[in-house]
Amino acid sequence: MSNTNVLYQHGTLALLVPGLLDGTITMKELLTHGDTGIGTGEGLDGELIILDGTPYQVDSTGSVNIVKGDFTLPFANIHYGNYHKLLSVENISQKELEKRILAQTSINTFFSIKVHGTFKDVKTRAVKKSHKPYDTLAKTAEAQSVFDRQEVSGTVLSYFSPTVFDGAAVAGFHHHFISDKHDFGGHLLSLGTVSGDVEIQQFDTLEQHLPVKNQDYMDFDFSQCDILGDIHKAE
Amino acid sequence: MSNTNVLYQHGTLALLVPGLLDGTITMKELLTHGDTGIGTGEGLDGELIILDGTPYQVDSTGSVNIVKGDFTLPFANIHYGNYHKLLSVENISQKELEKRILAQTSINTFFSIKVHGTFKDVKTRAVKKSHKPYDTLAKTAEAQSVFDRQEVSGTVLSYFSPTVFDGAAVAGFHHHFISDKHDFGGHLLSLGTVSGDVEIQQFDTLEQHLPVKNQDYMDFDFSQCDILGDIHKAE
Repeated sequence: MSNTNVLYQHGTLALLVPGLLDGTITMKELLTHGDTGIGTGEGLDGELIILDGTPYQVDSTGSVNIVKGDFTLPFANIHYGNYHKLLSVENISQKELEKRILAQTSINTFFSIKVHGTFKDVKTRAVKKSHKPYDTLAKTAEAQSVFDRQEVSGTVLSYFSPTVFDGAAVAGFHHHFISDKHDFGGHLLSLGTVSGDVEIQQFDTLEQHLPVKNQDYMDFDFSQCDILGDIHKAE
Repeated sequence: MSNTNVLYQHGTLALLVPGLLDGTITMKELLTHGDTGIGTGEGLDGELIILDGTPYQVDSTGSVNIVKGDFTLPFANIHYGNYHKLLSVENISQKELEKRILAQTSINTFFSIKVHGTFKDVKTRAVKKSHKPYDTLAKTAEAQSVFDRQEVSGTVLSYFSPTVFDGAAVAGFHHHFISDKHDFGGHLLSLGTVSGDVEIQQFDTLEQHLPVKNQDYMDFDFSQCDILGDIHKAE
């Protein structure tokens, strides 16, 4: 049964902070929980965006690849897409876009936003895979690649998480981007203006799955980490 | 299908803080997610403990009542019980009990503990129902009733939540108690010593359900609340 009220999350943002980056779910398994999502690969191997069941990876060279079922991830969000139209926008800034979305919805539950349209001055980043012993999130963020396009047609896929779940997720918006031509994308750093259609899907349930079979995760002492500080610096 | 790896949570500890205390799930619906759990009623109506599918309520007079299917709750945890023996203890303190449990398990995932045995110097509390406009958690905690027993046979049912979920849940242990005779119980404040059997059940998934149909919850501005401060004072 595909329940469109459920947002599935594997791993937490928190576990990325100290570099607990083993891939603990396969893409094949992840896709049993939805057809729309975001994530990153083992060792922070790029930025993933899943649309209509197809998992695209933007790697640190900027290439967009479709990953296979045995590709593994330390962190991902996925759900069964069932969006409805929220608004149409024309030449508005990212700040204005977020403001208009928030004026029409509650920030006390999880929701996803999909924006399809034409974007100007889009800046994305993709993190670079590290190998065991993995780098911390802060160190990976230092070595990230940044890409930009002056004008591009594409899709922003976002998740919004309530403040109380900060650490497990990123509180607020978490945007990934992919161009219609599948030749540009990544974690959205900023956009100049957007014209297009904004859709929303609200969830009533977060299904939070933790990598309990990963001994590094289970044994780790998080008490020495500045989880929230490091997440908000990197994300 | 009853998945014994899943801890179901309705509502958050955070929503209790400002007094968003409408009952947003019925006991009947809650019991479709498990047979073992804890919670509180609408308006903070007592302390609930669910054992083998029977929902006991310790109210603010100290009475233990079995609640009906239409009893509603703003917050609850429930799961399908499938415990295994962790250890036997004899005349140890609560601090020692918690220490021995934590020495044998990871604090990076959710788990439940069930201790059945003989307890000395047990102190419990039960909160008192308020009506709309509801009291805040801090105000309700001031008016709580405290009960004690010098020696009693009974069950401690606990949930442990990882630090990163503090606010959504209470980080660390959250213990409820009920006597074998069903004549004493509540939220466990302290115990002197315990002799008995300690069982554990570890989860890999938190199924976090939010009351999205409750307009008071959805419209509330949590940004002015000291959620974590108030939770740890009250819980």
